[in-house]
Amino acid sequence: MLPRGRPRALGAAALLLLLLLLGFLLFGGDLGCERREPGGRAGAPGCFPGPLMPRVPPDGRLRRAAALDGDPGAGPGDHNRSDCGPQPPPPPKCELLHVAIVCAGHNSSRDVITLVKSMLFYRKNPLHLHLVTDAVARNILETLFHTWMVPAVRVSFYHADQLKPQVSWIPNKHYSGLYGLMKLVLPSALPAELARVIVLDTDVTFASDISELWALFAHFSDTQAIGLVENQSDWYLGNLWKNHRPWPALGRGFNTGVILLRLDRLRQAGWEQMWRLTARRELLSLPATSLADQDIFNAVIKEHPGLVQRLPCVWNVQLSDHTLAERCYSEASDLKVIHWNSPKKLRVKNKHVEFFRNFYLTFLEYDGNLLRRELFVCPSQPPPGAEQQALAQLDEEDPCFEFRQQQLTVHRVHVTFLPHEPPPPRPHDVTLVAQLSMDRLQMLEALCRHWPGPMSLALYLTDAEAQQFLHFVEASPVLAARQDVAYHVVYREGPLYPVNQLRNVALAQALTPYVFLSDIDFLPAYSLYDYLRASIEQLGLGSRRKAALVVPAFETLRYRFSFPHSKVELLALLDAGTLYTFRYHEWPRGHAPTDYARWREAQAPYRVQWAANYEPYVVVPRDCPRYDPRFVGFGWNKVAHIVELDAQEYELLVLPEAFTIHLPHAPSLDISRFRSSPTYRDCLQALKDEFHQDLSRHHGAAALKYLPALQQPQSPARG
Amino acid sequence: MLPRGRPRALGAAALLLLLLLLGFLLFGGDLGCERREPGGRAGAPGCFPGPLMPRVPPDGRLRRAAALDGDPGAGPGDHNRSDCGPQPPPPPKCELLHVAIVCAGHNSSRDVITLVKSMLFYRKNPLHLHLVTDAVARNILETLFHTWMVPAVRVSFYHADQLKPQVSWIPNKHYSGLYGLMKLVLPSALPAELARVIVLDTDVTFASDISELWALFAHFSDTQAIGLVENQSDWYLGNLWKNHRPWPALGRGFNTGVILLRLDRLRQAGWEQMWRLTARRELLSLPATSLADQDIFNAVIKEHPGLVQRLPCVWNVQLSDHTLAERCYSEASDLKVIHWNSPKKLRVKNKHVEFFRNFYLTFLEYDGNLLRRELFVCPSQPPPGAEQQALAQLDEEDPCFEFRQQQLTVHRVHVTFLPHEPPPPRPHDVTLVAQLSMDRLQMLEALCRHWPGPMSLALYLTDAEAQQFLHFVEASPVLAARQDVAYHVVYREGPLYPVNQLRNVALAQALTPYVFLSDIDFLPAYSLYDYLRASIEQLGLGSRRKAALVVPAFETLRYRFSFPHSKVELLALLDAGTLYTFRYHEWPRGHAPTDYARWREAQAPYRVQWAANYEPYVVVPRDCPRYDPRFVGFGWNKVAHIVELDAQEYELLVLPEAFTIHLPHAPSLDISRFRSSPTYRDCLQALKDEFHQDLSRHHGAAALKYLPALQQPQSPARG
Repeated sequence: MLPRGRPRALGAAALLLLLLLLGFLLFGGDLGCERREPGGRAGAPGCFPGPLMPRVPPDGRLRRAAALDGDPGAGPGDHNRSDCGPQPPPPPKCELLHVAIVCAGHNSSRDVITLVKSMLFYRKNPLHLHLVTDAVARNILETLFHTWMVPAVRVSFYHADQLKPQVSWIPNKHYSGLYGLMKLVLPSALPAELARVIVLDTDVTFASDISELWALFAHFSDTQAIGLVENQSDWYLGNLWKNHRPWPALGRGFNTGVILLRLDRLRQAGWEQMWRLTARRELLSLPATSLADQDIFNAVIKEHPGLVQRLPCVWNVQLSDHTLAERCYSEASDLKVIHWNSPKKLRVKNKHVEFFRNFYLTFLEYDGNLLRRELFVCPSQPPPGAEQQALAQLDEEDPCFEFRQQQLTVHRVHVTFLPHEPPPPRPHDVTLVAQLSMDRLQMLEALCRHWPGPMSLALYLTDAEAQQFLHFVEASPVLAARQDVAYHVVYREGPLYPVNQLRNVALAQALTPYVFLSDIDFLPAYSLYDYLRASIEQLGLGSRRKAALVVPAFETLRYRFSFPHSKVELLALLDAGTLYTFRYHEWPRGHAPTDYARWREAQAPYRVQWAANYEPYVVVPRDCPRYDPRFVGFGWNKVAHIVELDAQEYELLVLPEAFTIHLPHAPSLDISRFRSSPTYRDCLQALKDEFHQDLSRHHGAAALKYLPALQQPQSPARG
Repeated sequence: MLPRGRPRALGAAALLLLLLLLGFLLFGGDLGCERREPGGRAGAPGCFPGPLMPRVPPDGRLRRAAALDGDPGAGPGDHNRSDCGPQPPPPPKCELLHVAIVCAGHNSSRDVITLVKSMLFYRKNPLHLHLVTDAVARNILETLFHTWMVPAVRVSFYHADQLKPQVSWIPNKHYSGLYGLMKLVLPSALPAELARVIVLDTDVTFASDISELWALFAHFSDTQAIGLVENQSDWYLGNLWKNHRPWPALGRGFNTGVILLRLDRLRQAGWEQMWRLTARRELLSLPATSLADQDIFNAVIKEHPGLVQRLPCVWNVQLSDHTLAERCYSEASDLKVIHWNSPKKLRVKNKHVEFFRNFYLTFLEYDGNLLRRELFVCPSQPPPGAEQQALAQLDEEDPCFEFRQQQLTVHRVHVTFLPHEPPPPRPHDVTLVAQLSMDRLQMLEALCRHWPGPMSLALYLTDAEAQQFLHFVEASPVLAARQDVAYHVVYREGPLYPVNQLRNVALAQALTPYVFLSDIDFLPAYSLYDYLRASIEQLGLGSRRKAALVVPAFETLRYRFSFPHSKVELLALLDAGTLYTFRYHEWPRGHAPTDYARWREAQAPYRVQWAANYEPYVVVPRDCPRYDPRFVGFGWNKVAHIVELDAQEYELLVLPEAFTIHLPHAPSLDISRFRSSPTYRDCLQALKDEFHQDLSRHHGAAALKYLPALQQPQSPARG
């Protein structure tokens, strides 16, 4: 037994001393081992105890970015194993990382989204995207990010048009066009206070956390300003064919699909003058750039090799034809960034292309809604929006919960998903507006044949379906030939079809002064487009009259029937019982106010009065009231819009030569639910009540007119 | 300048000595620092230089599995940052990792697949799955893995039924039932040569590479045998409510959703006796286990604490209600495994549940086909199968490339996706067999009303659509009430609808002696199920006669019509022009041999002769010829099957009281393509030619009979 009191304290002191001594012997007194990198943080890498002398680090751990080859110490696996050795410390938790991308046009915008999805999937840090865009890409990406609402992602846009004069003097043969060259002017185009940025081509895919790439800034020496991966092809070695004369480069040169830029140092070093001088000089003997910015970056680096920091090859695995990339990825597991830098893209020939394709398809088809997940440890991010808060407060036990949830859901929207030429400005032009999901794709060709004018169509799709849709259009000569049809993808989320939200997206994107508000299962008369434009002009719609032109609706129950070429033919089919007025059997009052008997004889437009449940197809000015987004699923979605038009005192004018015909299809899932579920019908009634309360608020006593209509039973067919 | 020759060598030697000395001072003389773990490899972990004494390791690096709390040094971020410190070295490249999962029933099988998808997404090593299953799960998972064909994944099955006697004596109140307890007997159930295994519950989701988890075996001391994460709830502390008396445990106890088992050591330590003794003793005073195997594991560990190695909490983040897991994941980015260990599963209440749900949904909806990507660096994996080799050799320029590709595609198949009761064995029972995709879901309720017998339906869906389908069935009282409808999900891949492959899946899974080969857009007469069983019995089908019973087909062009309750009513509708014989307008020869005129008057079954293009709906024994899978997309798929039946000398007998009626729907995408594409038609003709060559090979000169039929033009409607 130990003695009590002081002797015990003495024993403890002796033990402590012993421990201190032991500690010194065991661990040594090294402080220098915790090397402080220029990036700022103390880091673990390159810090290994040696028994007697600074030995060769095990398994290449101390090695930084080994070159693709020519480095005798670099075995094929060295670049890849994600052991802790070659990894720099991660950036501080919640550090904001900056990424710049140049993007122009419809197709590149789709590419950027896949890139961003892969980046978001692995990221752990807040991101600030700096997007240099043309007007098309800006419209697409601004809408997309606005509706995507990814937490901890900021997006800034820069006008590519304003940068064009700075690079348009450079002759260029690369498929990326002028936009590729814009990476050269980022140091001046991006905000002066921005010191570092990762610059990405639109055709790269992340397979790892971008913070690991950002962390490589810490490896830059005090003078290095550009981090690049060596080219994985022999292009810059020259002599690939007779008279092949590439721009000058260090060895194989560097690939500019992934760049780490120290903007601050480039600005200090006079980058603007530097690259221009080099480019001008080389262009004295070379006719043009072949690989856009990459030629110029390489020429500058050849002259100023001290600028460049070589990055590990896994950060830009280049899948061009004849790529040498396989030397780099000895293990697929350690790929960090894949670069589809062949003009053939996914169709490139490569031993492992199936693997890479699958990886790419993962993000192409990935449900982007799932990336709305929060970085909940970074408190500085903006708080959730009003919709999200309202969503979080919904009562899951409410029988109308699904309706409430669907109404509050903000859908991700990708406008002009495919290349689109806006129609030339014409004072009486009309855009056909409609919405659909995958099960109505087969209507598109027929619709294109019936309506030769501009269309704005909202498609309710998953990310994977959007790709199927793309292939569908590409495979159809009829659709591929039409540049005046704008397809807007609204991404699916929730159990009910958000019909009015879809209509509003398509309506908001219509670019002509007038819109024909149609439904996808209708085919208009062949002459309708011309006839509507003539009618709008004659009637002085918009400027002189606030009116909605009614296009009378009919229906056939047969799949194959001879579409009437005139009103006379239509009336003959009607009399023969081949055609009916729309919903004649099931819900005649939806169109009764159109007064089909009068229409038969009419020679001129005639005015009709609103009545309960009226839901005609109308032509209105583009600035007409929006559809009420509270009506989701089946029921009252068009009826409410016509009520609003009437409340705003639009005249309802039926056109004597206009008609549109509904084609048969199986009943939608929503109508099946409506028919079978009393709850569904009760919830719809609740929506109608709320709609009327809002109507009264806006229109006062005038809204009383609509009260009886709101208390009537609902049409049993999709409204 | 240095002097030349020997003095320079001396200088170099002195420099070397200096370096050695410096190295000793800087790095210390420690050799013990490179601890050789029992796992075998020298490792970096826990090896950091200290300046003067064993200081508190920076950022928790020396700490292994820090306890959830109660460890004063453990800040909330300590368990999580994936710095290099706490990570053991990865297992050797291509090392085979073993995983054991107990799985029983339809719902758990779906869960296992989501778990496996998450595991495969991040894995870099070959895996061997050891699945302890009941007969239901075995049928599902065997088919699934067989058709999934994931490279570098081996699967072994073990009969849960055989293990039952070893655990059925234990009274248990946990929702996992007897199957939860089976984890206790894995050391004896798994092969004797298997030394290590990771054991997983079906309700966990990976967020990282499983090799990182496997690497933690290296931390086990010589006597440790069970790696576990501490419980993230207060359950085992007791006193949660009056008379709450949990099983004994060390502190909060451990959660057994993720276990690292050293099977070799457990066998040596006499595990079989050990846990039984403990369980028997505790059951003297406790009525039953509340948490199945977990109670017993904890009781054993309380008694033998030396067995357990604590794992970092991020390897089992437990999302029960009132979980304390948030203390563990201070950063979502460092989650490794998520455990949905509340009976509420995704509906659990938790501040960050949206994040976790999104993560889970990622894998639930993830296209499993994309996980077929190879681990192309591990050469020992079995070479690709014949189909894959044939696929790789296809010529992409061949105009029929899409057809060839689709034919060779092996689709992932998930049989009995939803709970299903096999029909009791009855000698004349008939299963309705059909196939569909999402756009025909709304037919299912009506079909259930018309056919009260067993059905086997193949659904062609994406992974995400399979979840929508699940919700659709759950929301429908009609469908949810039917346990005799088996739904088999065939996962989508490729551009053409593999109609005959789908039919074959549904046919192979039919469990009654007879099958009614129908299509999803037909509704059978209400009496058909009873009538067919009676007819089969009367006609002595199968045992005495080799016959196919023809069910005459009709069609309506109206969505809403009064389905006839008898042949008399049907004939009246036919006469009224409300019904037609099937394809009367478009392709009468598809059903002309049925001889509708004779059927009107027939009182008894009558025999008809095969003729070109005949494609009736028939009832045949379950062992009938399969459909020819070469016919994909539109055309000739049923016609070829009837040819084969005729070639095999099946009698064609028309039943006088049987009928089925086709409901209208919009034309399919495949038929639209057939109509518009000459290439499509040419490819179909090529398939027909090949079909006939095969027919001649099997049936010799008898096949000549079908040659003219094969050269006729194809029906313009979906065949």
